[in-house]
Amino acid sequence: MDPRTLLDLPTPALIVDAELLAQNLNTMAAARPGATLRPHVKAHKCTELARAQLAVGHSSFTCATPREMIGMAAAGLGADLLLANEVLDRARLAQMVSEGERHGARMTVAVDSPETVEAADAAGVREVLVDVDIGLPRCGCAPSDAARIAELARARGMHVRGVMGYEGHLMVMDDRDLQRRKVAEAVDLLVAAHESVGGDVVSAGGTGTYDLHDRVTDVQAGSYALMDTYYAKLQLPFVQACWVLGTVISANASRAVADVGLKAMGMDHGNPTVSTLDARDAQVWFLSDEHVSFAQPAGAIKVGERVLLAPAHIDPTMAMHEIAWLVRDHEVIDRWPINLRGWD
Amino acid sequence: MDPRTLLDLPTPALIVDAELLAQNLNTMAAARPGATLRPHVKAHKCTELARAQLAVGHSSFTCATPREMIGMAAAGLGADLLLANEVLDRARLAQMVSEGERHGARMTVAVDSPETVEAADAAGVREVLVDVDIGLPRCGCAPSDAARIAELARARGMHVRGVMGYEGHLMVMDDRDLQRRKVAEAVDLLVAAHESVGGDVVSAGGTGTYDLHDRVTDVQAGSYALMDTYYAKLQLPFVQACWVLGTVISANASRAVADVGLKAMGMDHGNPTVSTLDARDAQVWFLSDEHVSFAQPAGAIKVGERVLLAPAHIDPTMAMHEIAWLVRDHEVIDRWPINLRGWD
Repeated sequence: MDPRTLLDLPTPALIVDAELLAQNLNTMAAARPGATLRPHVKAHKCTELARAQLAVGHSSFTCATPREMIGMAAAGLGADLLLANEVLDRARLAQMVSEGERHGARMTVAVDSPETVEAADAAGVREVLVDVDIGLPRCGCAPSDAARIAELARARGMHVRGVMGYEGHLMVMDDRDLQRRKVAEAVDLLVAAHESVGGDVVSAGGTGTYDLHDRVTDVQAGSYALMDTYYAKLQLPFVQACWVLGTVISANASRAVADVGLKAMGMDHGNPTVSTLDARDAQVWFLSDEHVSFAQPAGAIKVGERVLLAPAHIDPTMAMHEIAWLVRDHEVIDRWPINLRGWD
Repeated sequence: MDPRTLLDLPTPALIVDAELLAQNLNTMAAARPGATLRPHVKAHKCTELARAQLAVGHSSFTCATPREMIGMAAAGLGADLLLANEVLDRARLAQMVSEGERHGARMTVAVDSPETVEAADAAGVREVLVDVDIGLPRCGCAPSDAARIAELARARGMHVRGVMGYEGHLMVMDDRDLQRRKVAEAVDLLVAAHESVGGDVVSAGGTGTYDLHDRVTDVQAGSYALMDTYYAKLQLPFVQACWVLGTVISANASRAVADVGLKAMGMDHGNPTVSTLDARDAQVWFLSDEHVSFAQPAGAIKVGERVLLAPAHIDPTMAMHEIAWLVRDHEVIDRWPINLRGWD
């Protein structure tokens, strides 16, 4: 047991509340048990957190990079790993295949074009999933092209496990009924593609739509485990379980400044929120490289006090930290390396 | 010589154009030679780049974290290091002092309160600078309080080298004449504080105001070396010298997607720009964790092609990469570790 508390960890420090994390993991495991959830590790990049997801019943995982695939395999979490992203880098794919074989991992790779099929084959990938564009203008082939991509893979001797899609454009919507209809329309496209492709897997979804899927085999949710203020806008049963801890390094009557800046906080969804350890909220003004400036909360905060920042986007925030400090009642109980960062 | 080019580096890869970097360094060294510039290393976090700044005449540097101070000292770049930030963590400050002594570095620390003076003294810091609030609501004591802070430090036997301030709220303004007047008003506050504090150093400024200072001893500019699209809005004589290289992993008639996402790009100033290697611009739609989606440029781009993304904010972008690849005419000529990242 680490003898430290939130009052003496060096800052900025990424903090995970063990009980709130467990609450989120249990809530999701009840809603989508076992293999019906394929947790996305890009949201935390931490094999110890993935191990906690395995402990509540999920043994198949989603990854975004070969680095994440290799790290999961090396951690003994490779029962069924899906690289849900297109990769053309044959050297990295081949290294991934080799590490997968060494650790006895099952590795499946998303493909959406002749080029990605060719790269996967050249690297020794034996199982693929056809990534289908179901509305988000990002990766994925046209649904009508899915059968052709599958045939290209089969012609090279690869096993086609099925299809995946990601309705990322529908993750956060105010109108839940409209969201339900739109997700159903997106899944119609995926199901049609699946009919033309075959295979056992139909994978889609995320934290914002985890409960809107009844025609897929697994949902690729990641953010639900730790959450962020962006997903908190939805009425989801998941709670904020992760913060960046800071120390107030300067203060006067109107403002205070803590040592958590742009290099410790994913900013693409906007500013984080700031609160004191006793849960008084402060109005954030702006972040600099190593600072957050905020208005003095009720009962002014002093130099040396600690504050908690809740990220607006959890995924890039995790990628900025080397360690997640697991805490219970403000006491440090474990130290989890965020060990799936980077690309090499 | 690395035999690789921009066509075969693994991506995402942070790229620095050696000639454009040299052009920026020379332009600044001509405008603010030697010790009249105190380059801020937080903008690049790379001791090899700092060495290039030393080579054009700047031997004093600005840092934002103890980690940056220690790394600069260990690299033999410690002739005159200023930690232009308040730090209360005595263990980190003490380690910094110890590493500074081991490497023969001169280390000065900013203070703006009794608490920061006390922490510096307890950690063995012998030289301080009083950080003065000259308009940016971040760190710094009130100008009228500067003499008192200086006396607190002197009473503990520390040498007070002078004052610093940062007019960050005036860095980017459309109206150059207004900017000049506002900077002069901010410097009035700093000069008044200096009169009450004494010492040889009056330090302020940044890339956006580097040429608007005639009453300070040194300017703390950092972004000028590599630049970003935010500073490019000003009519500065510095050019974009840094990009993140990506590979197009998916494309159709309307859009393309490259493998540079939120985990490889500082997003607080907004989206990066995207262009092809032959300088055709593309309209960026959005970034995801590992993707940038953009409209097909004139002469559609294909899967496997390379693109260059210019960051909107250079500082946090650098902190996301482990290596800066130095290139000339698209050929790799060196590999610079971005070795001042993190906090430990």
